[in-house]
Amino acid sequence: MSIGTLFIVSAPSGAGKTSLVTALRESLEGFTVSVSHTTRTQRPGEVHGRDYFFVDHAEFERMIAADGFLEHARVFDNYYGTARTTVETALSEGQDVLLEIDWQGARQIRSLMPDSISIFILPPSRRTLEERLKARGQDDPDTIARRMRDAISEMSHYSEYDYLVVNDDFDRAVAELRSIVIASRLRTRRQFEACKDLIAGLLA
Amino acid sequence: MSIGTLFIVSAPSGAGKTSLVTALRESLEGFTVSVSHTTRTQRPGEVHGRDYFFVDHAEFERMIAADGFLEHARVFDNYYGTARTTVETALSEGQDVLLEIDWQGARQIRSLMPDSISIFILPPSRRTLEERLKARGQDDPDTIARRMRDAISEMSHYSEYDYLVVNDDFDRAVAELRSIVIASRLRTRRQFEACKDLIAGLLA
Repeated sequence: MSIGTLFIVSAPSGAGKTSLVTALRESLEGFTVSVSHTTRTQRPGEVHGRDYFFVDHAEFERMIAADGFLEHARVFDNYYGTARTTVETALSEGQDVLLEIDWQGARQIRSLMPDSISIFILPPSRRTLEERLKARGQDDPDTIARRMRDAISEMSHYSEYDYLVVNDDFDRAVAELRSIVIASRLRTRRQFEACKDLIAGLLA
Repeated sequence: MSIGTLFIVSAPSGAGKTSLVTALRESLEGFTVSVSHTTRTQRPGEVHGRDYFFVDHAEFERMIAADGFLEHARVFDNYYGTARTTVETALSEGQDVLLEIDWQGARQIRSLMPDSISIFILPPSRRTLEERLKARGQDDPDTIARRMRDAISEMSHYSEYDYLVVNDDFDRAVAELRSIVIASRLRTRRQFEACKDLIAGLLA
């Protein structure tokens, strides 16, 4: 049984991460995007179990106490976390698993799973980032300023990541993410399992 | 000035390495295939400076004495080696450089250049390998048996390499090599140079 790779993808709001990850998932087999738990309010159009597992504070804290999270963080008044069982089951079945988390979660995962591969996505320019943050329909200047500060704070951690992808041309960025995943599947320690019979035959 | 990556590609005779590397080079910019020096006899169709630099034993040994090789080896009665200056100049100009060498050369390069990326190419089956070794127009059974022993000896070192590519479907194998090279260009320490201005603007 082969063992999958855990990919961590982080980006500031407005970098286009979710669209990229959706396109990546559609273009590759053997790939699971992990669904996080959160205590924040479900937005219109969001689906429990697809976008997030929406739980209340008491349930989230019970899971923390039971060591049920690979990583979790409190952002403003809400918890966000990655349940341990979902990820570990998929990896042991040979699936690659992708987590969309922030730099704090990425740090926690890296220390627990040093073989994970982390990718940071940057927007193509400051101007594009500002436009995307304004286009979210919340034009209150304080909210926009806070989103911008959060984005800069998130981006200041880019150098902790293994790979850096710029979302300038969408299709190229998807192709680059694909290359990172495909290359990871060609690593010798991963291929050793997949090619066991071939290698035995060649060296006989 | 960005710094290129050194790729080491090894394979047994009959794995299709040279055709793969030619196709890879044609499909990617910024990529140099290093031409080795050798003392072996030039074969019909081979071009000095394209396939090899053909030199005599005295010249080769003079270069060894002058520390002119990144790696060199004696195979049967002939020397093969990679000249230091060619590689170092291309890398410092930001070119990726690909070396086609055997496992002994790969070991020498790895110890000198630990950031190099090594790839081993396997043929798709024992039967294909045998057919390709026979198809070289030298049907003397002893020669074929010796080539087979050499191939198995070379393949026994596959686990020392970072990546393992199986040349089963030619186009897929080329795409896999491309993915390894593209992913290497997305590594954060490499992108840091390429994206310096973007990052400065985003974090300002």
